[in-house]
Amino acid sequence: MTTTKPAPILTDRYRSVRELTEHLAEPISPEEQTIQSMPDASPTKWHRGHTSWFFETFLLRSELSGYEVFDEAYNYLFNSYYNAVGERLARPSRGILGRPSSATVGDYRRRVDQAMAALLDTAAGRRANVVELIDLGLHHEQQHQELLLVDIKYTLSQNPIRPAYRGNTLAPTPAAPLEWLDVSGGIFSIGHNGDGFGFDNELPRHEVLLDPFRIASRPVTNGEWLKFMDDGGYRRSELWLSEGWVTCGAQGWSHPEYWISDDDWHQFTLDGVVRLDPDEPVSHVSFFEADAYARWSGERLPTEFEWECATRRLSPAGPGDGINSLDSGRLHPGGPTDGNRLYGDVWEWTASPYVGYPGFRAAEGAVGEYNGKFMVNQQVLRGGCCLTPANHMRLSYRNFYQAHTRWQCSGLRLAR
Amino acid sequence: MTTTKPAPILTDRYRSVRELTEHLAEPISPEEQTIQSMPDASPTKWHRGHTSWFFETFLLRSELSGYEVFDEAYNYLFNSYYNAVGERLARPSRGILGRPSSATVGDYRRRVDQAMAALLDTAAGRRANVVELIDLGLHHEQQHQELLLVDIKYTLSQNPIRPAYRGNTLAPTPAAPLEWLDVSGGIFSIGHNGDGFGFDNELPRHEVLLDPFRIASRPVTNGEWLKFMDDGGYRRSELWLSEGWVTCGAQGWSHPEYWISDDDWHQFTLDGVVRLDPDEPVSHVSFFEADAYARWSGERLPTEFEWECATRRLSPAGPGDGINSLDSGRLHPGGPTDGNRLYGDVWEWTASPYVGYPGFRAAEGAVGEYNGKFMVNQQVLRGGCCLTPANHMRLSYRNFYQAHTRWQCSGLRLAR
Amino acid sequence: MTTTKPAPILTDRYRSVRELTEHLAEPISPEEQTIQSMPDASPTKWHRGHTSWFFETFLLRSELSGYEVFDEAYNYLFNSYYNAVGERLARPSRGILGRPSSATVGDYRRRVDQAMAALLDTAAGRRANVVELIDLGLHHEQQHQELLLVDIKYTLSQNPIRPAYRGNTLAPTPAAPLEWLDVSGGIFSIGHNGDGFGFDNELPRHEVLLDPFRIASRPVTNGEWLKFMDDGGYRRSELWLSEGWVTCGAQGWSHPEYWISDDDWHQFTLDGVVRLDPDEPVSHVSFFEADAYARWSGERLPTEFEWECATRRLSPAGPGDGINSLDSGRLHPGGPTDGNRLYGDVWEWTASPYVGYPGFRAAEGAVGEYNGKFMVNQQVLRGGCCLTPANHMRLSYRNFYQAHTRWQCSGLRLAR
Amino acid sequence: MTTTKPAPILTDRYRSVRELTEHLAEPISPEEQTIQSMPDASPTKWHRGHTSWFFETFLLRSELSGYEVFDEAYNYLFNSYYNAVGERLARPSRGILGRPSSATVGDYRRRVDQAMAALLDTAAGRRANVVELIDLGLHHEQQHQELLLVDIKYTLSQNPIRPAYRGNTLAPTPAAPLEWLDVSGGIFSIGHNGDGFGFDNELPRHEVLLDPFRIASRPVTNGEWLKFMDDGGYRRSELWLSEGWVTCGAQGWSHPEYWISDDDWHQFTLDGVVRLDPDEPVSHVSFFEADAYARWSGERLPTEFEWECATRRLSPAGPGDGINSLDSGRLHPGGPTDGNRLYGDVWEWTASPYVGYPGFRAAEGAVGEYNGKFMVNQQVLRGGCCLTPANHMRLSYRNFYQAHTRWQCSGLRLAR
Repeated sequence: MTTTKPAPILTDRYRSVRELTEHLAEPISPEEQTIQSMPDASPTKWHRGHTSWFFETFLLRSELSGYEVFDEAYNYLFNSYYNAVGERLARPSRGILGRPSSATVGDYRRRVDQAMAALLDTAAGRRANVVELIDLGLHHEQQHQELLLVDIKYTLSQNPIRPAYRGNTLAPTPAAPLEWLDVSGGIFSIGHNGDGFGFDNELPRHEVLLDPFRIASRPVTNGEWLKFMDDGGYRRSELWLSEGWVTCGAQGWSHPEYWISDDDWHQFTLDGVVRLDPDEPVSHVSFFEADAYARWSGERLPTEFEWECATRRLSPAGPGDGINSLDSGRLHPGGPTDGNRLYGDVWEWTASPYVGYPGFRAAEGAVGEYNGKFMVNQQVLRGGCCLTPANHMRLSYRNFYQAHTRWQCSGLRLAR
Repeated sequence: MTTTKPAPILTDRYRSVRELTEHLAEPISPEEQTIQSMPDASPTKWHRGHTSWFFETFLLRSELSGYEVFDEAYNYLFNSYYNAVGERLARPSRGILGRPSSATVGDYRRRVDQAMAALLDTAAGRRANVVELIDLGLHHEQQHQELLLVDIKYTLSQNPIRPAYRGNTLAPTPAAPLEWLDVSGGIFSIGHNGDGFGFDNELPRHEVLLDPFRIASRPVTNGEWLKFMDDGGYRRSELWLSEGWVTCGAQGWSHPEYWISDDDWHQFTLDGVVRLDPDEPVSHVSFFEADAYARWSGERLPTEFEWECATRRLSPAGPGDGINSLDSGRLHPGGPTDGNRLYGDVWEWTASPYVGYPGFRAAEGAVGEYNGKFMVNQQVLRGGCCLTPANHMRLSYRNFYQAHTRWQCSGLRLAR
Repeated sequence: MTTTKPAPILTDRYRSVRELTEHLAEPISPEEQTIQSMPDASPTKWHRGHTSWFFETFLLRSELSGYEVFDEAYNYLFNSYYNAVGERLARPSRGILGRPSSATVGDYRRRVDQAMAALLDTAAGRRANVVELIDLGLHHEQQHQELLLVDIKYTLSQNPIRPAYRGNTLAPTPAAPLEWLDVSGGIFSIGHNGDGFGFDNELPRHEVLLDPFRIASRPVTNGEWLKFMDDGGYRRSELWLSEGWVTCGAQGWSHPEYWISDDDWHQFTLDGVVRLDPDEPVSHVSFFEADAYARWSGERLPTEFEWECATRRLSPAGPGDGINSLDSGRLHPGGPTDGNRLYGDVWEWTASPYVGYPGFRAAEGAVGEYNGKFMVNQQVLRGGCCLTPANHMRLSYRNFYQAHTRWQCSGLRLAR
Repeated sequence: MTTTKPAPILTDRYRSVRELTEHLAEPISPEEQTIQSMPDASPTKWHRGHTSWFFETFLLRSELSGYEVFDEAYNYLFNSYYNAVGERLARPSRGILGRPSSATVGDYRRRVDQAMAALLDTAAGRRANVVELIDLGLHHEQQHQELLLVDIKYTLSQNPIRPAYRGNTLAPTPAAPLEWLDVSGGIFSIGHNGDGFGFDNELPRHEVLLDPFRIASRPVTNGEWLKFMDDGGYRRSELWLSEGWVTCGAQGWSHPEYWISDDDWHQFTLDGVVRLDPDEPVSHVSFFEADAYARWSGERLPTEFEWECATRRLSPAGPGDGINSLDSGRLHPGGPTDGNRLYGDVWEWTASPYVGYPGFRAAEGAVGEYNGKFMVNQQVLRGGCCLTPANHMRLSYRNFYQAHTRWQCSGLRLAR
């Protein structure tokens, strides 16, 4: 985690990130903000509290003299998984919090924001390690903005009356032909280059040896996925990893999460139930499904190194404009785009299990629990999705989920 | 279910029962009204909706011409367990209902109330079978008033910050000496006598043969329960039924629900955490615990027939004034009382499994699912508790719960 | 538990009961004797060891001076559920016992038998309380003879190749018309009359008041059950108790245990797979199914008091000859019979939950754990089945199982 | 899978491998051969049947004209996980097989062996693809020899009387100082070199880029592990991966599997309970524990590439003599050794998740299910253990287990 941002810019960025969270939560009623629809999907209110707790716990308590803790109980309620900070509410129990109310969480946020503004005005607020922690806190909050949306999507979908988060009409996605991009082999540098923010799991930058490969110009689409389904994709054990096949049977999967089989295919979105657009990137599939699809297609998933290497060549300037990120406001994969299709739309499952890079060391102290302790039995996803803030995406970003999860906005891109 | 109430009185009663529900729900925030803290404990909002659905489904749809259903989806959302009325939301999933909001459920209640007022003004509203159904609906709602309170108590208790429903100070309970009341044996009539309302499970009235017995003048108290605990009550297998002992170990029971072991014993109440009053009737114990206590004490639990027979002799006029019911407003067992101690305070576990009386027939149609289909693997409780409306208590009332449940306000009285 | 048998007769009976156990186990290979196919179904070898442990623990250790315990570990391995005797192997873990081998268990039995023969020759062996315990031990072993057979039946049925215990050809069952037997009402004595052996749960003998009733002359048959199935019996929720309906769905029941749907109906028996005989009593149904059938038929199940009262009048001399007990060797319900059909064939589910009779006290000491601690959440069955030794059946016998169990040879008789 | 062995040698090897299986099973009684003590630990009898089924299914059915299948049911009973071969007995249900008996499985083996001898005499038996399949079948059987032993060890350990497989006295292990071996970095070839047998998952041979590293000269010992325990290793969350910490708590781990805490530490072995030897390599630890130990020690686990690279340099001739393999007959880690300590003793957990090598393609047909479909959520182990046949070990061998498993003879070696 390194940063070079001077404080004034940081003050602006702090304000805009924090305001965006509240803006995203606005359409969600106090009742809906309270519900935990499954262990993985935290209540909106909890996300709003937890991201504030991060600043209070790792910055205000130690760095702002005279700071009065808003409520000592919150250190229990809003700690996610930091063992070093003490006991905490069990993750599946976050839905028990009738209080603090949604309004009180708003008060908490305002108090933290005032105190952070004060801290940013002090000399302490300009110390490198403090600036680094603030930067970490903002990127942490951006992660939770994405989670807030995927979680409320899941929660709304479980309500039999399927209420919408918003009522927009989604623009159709223009068909994009699939092209294969050639990438030559060799030794490549992988990981964060020290420029701007990065998580500890993007380090150390190191070299890997890659064979030449080809990678698809865009993610797999709903239309292509329908062909997989029509060809018995969910019924042919030979296409699946053993654990995937067992999961598929136990869960009764026969299509991606949120798809609805009526006369015609529909899907549940943050804008309610809409007709399935065959040209959109497929989303809300598990790694097991992505892997089975790749095997069926005769291709494979790229490794995270191939993804990073290809993207470095094809989009050297980073995500850029015109991609489908949270900033575009679509809140769903697809739609018109004038950018490349390497960032945005869907997080892309890679063939790479999530492990530390050679020489990886977790950060010191509680924030060291951020990434390192999850480095087993998860798969890396790359690229960022339609719910990821654009300035939270980057080349070396490593997202990670368990192979069976589907509630994240996850899709896939093929390689060969 | 028979009734003789003329309509004008019914109109008043309808209004007062319905208003009480909203009054009881008032201190509960929209967020808290939404939470389901365990499968048995339904959200406040759901109780408010379900009791209204009862009137809409069994009366307004068929009896009020021109009635427009408020929302067809509610027939799915607010059906509790009536198979004959169609599919329904699974019981453990009631906490998923972010919408309808608490306010919308209020609108629903008002619409139903207006329509019911209209129905009560029509000739149809005076037909015997309609009056009977309304009466049933009101008693049904009174049951849910009690449930609303025991459910929110459980939900609040699960929140680590243990918020209170209310902030009253509980008056202490004067010590009452234990006396043994003699009841002679013989053949007795058991069940509802046809006077006023009764559920179908209180019929047919029939005769049973009883030996002479003695019954305690008041329920077991917290202080007496502490002696059981001090004597190893929760650690001595020989005191327990086999299934009770397994449950005790699996659940880690070492005291009644809501008791808190600090320097001194405290308990969680609807008025927050208070010091344990040894003279209060013990509450929130399971049948398994009540049975173990009775065995430890060398006495036994009365059968439901003994309870009914004793109560008929000792309180022939019914619950009467001065008992600790919902009407007294204490919302907790104990406190000063000038009434007898056979009704009120706590539901009393009896030794009787819940089965149909000889010749029992469930009512026709969907309302026949009210009681009969639960007649296995449950125990009968008698008497009514501090959260039961006084005019909902009666001599022949048979409450029933599974032997392991503790969230109901349940205690015990001894017999020998 | 009272007895009047003089010792010489007891010696003979001891030998014949113990030999029968070994005879029943003979066709079962060492491998099959070791398997526990579900928590309720104990291995054959364990039954053989446990019944011997009973004599060693409750008699030889205290009553035979100089008795050397065969293996101290057996007190842990072969204790079923007697908490007072100490820790024990968990019930679902009985299948872990590779050792002691089947042959070593045979040695154990022989050692116990020699020592018991010695004890029976001593003065101590004629003391009333010792004779009573021996009698109890023999009735205990007879219960386990029945269990040994129903357990191995379940175990063999779970093996995909469905091996047979024996290879006999079952004689067909002659059709018997259903008659309704009238029993007048009044006050009746229920329970053991002190003549011969009885378990503690058959006492105290006490009086009950019964209305007049009619009871069927024979159990429900397979052919009648098929009509229930054809009429949607397993698909109509209105016929079922709520917990029964949930169980039926969760277990996927659509016919009795062991029935096999081919072109025609077959069933698995101890003699392998045979064609279903419509005139045989239906067996291996749960209480939930029996109750649903009774509701479907417009009749009801008798209470255990009605069963006892009717049987006292109709078969005052007891089971008698010609009934289908273990002694008849059919090992399956049905077949030619010249006896009445109130005993034998199938255990009959009654409408009565299993509770203690008024004034019930469990026996003192460890043997007091035999019956009393199971008096909750079980249903009483009466009559004895085709696997019950004839001299183990009696008028006042109360068998009990949980309402969902089906592996016992359980059927039903109707009343109205 | 490539091989160059001419048939006569193959005939000898076939006989010796098959005989060894029976020799290993000999001390195990028919009862013990039948037990499945957990889903992962198959019955001995099943291993003996399954390895024979492999030859019958993939060779005799298609290659030996006139071969008569021993029993068609075995294709269901003894199929492990080959979907392409059809339905099969669920893995956790292998303990239900009372029949076929242990003796009948012996008959099955003999029949298969006779037929295989006949096949090896035919021209077909010398076809390259047939020889390859036989070779695969023999390596498959060698894997199951190891499994047979680790499985029976677990099964015996679960029996409260802890019977021994054998009664040998274990020779003590001489203390070996820990040295750090330097390995320089560069580009290395990884995977099978085409010489002799290899599984499909060892291919394709490919190049990887490695930094310089150091690797320990021997595995971690029991004595070193005791220091980890004394330093709170099982109680300090900061040492563990998140999923490991949850598993540790849920399983109640406080020491390796089979350790027994008396006055002094003991452990259960195939020779019964013995005193813990501090100089022996620690065994029966999960990946989660190995990873926590490495973090505690300040070192790390090697990757599988580092292991292969180090071993290629240090033991270029392969396992060699004097190592502790199945051939040494110790059946337990440790003991005097004149070989290197890179092979044998314990399988060594590596830091590498189990994935396909770049360009990996599973073999065609059913045998393609052997390895590839397990390539997710498992960790690679290297080296072979004291229960692995020496000629089944090799440089490129990739064993794989889930991170929580401990019943395999698994330990660890450190790197830095």
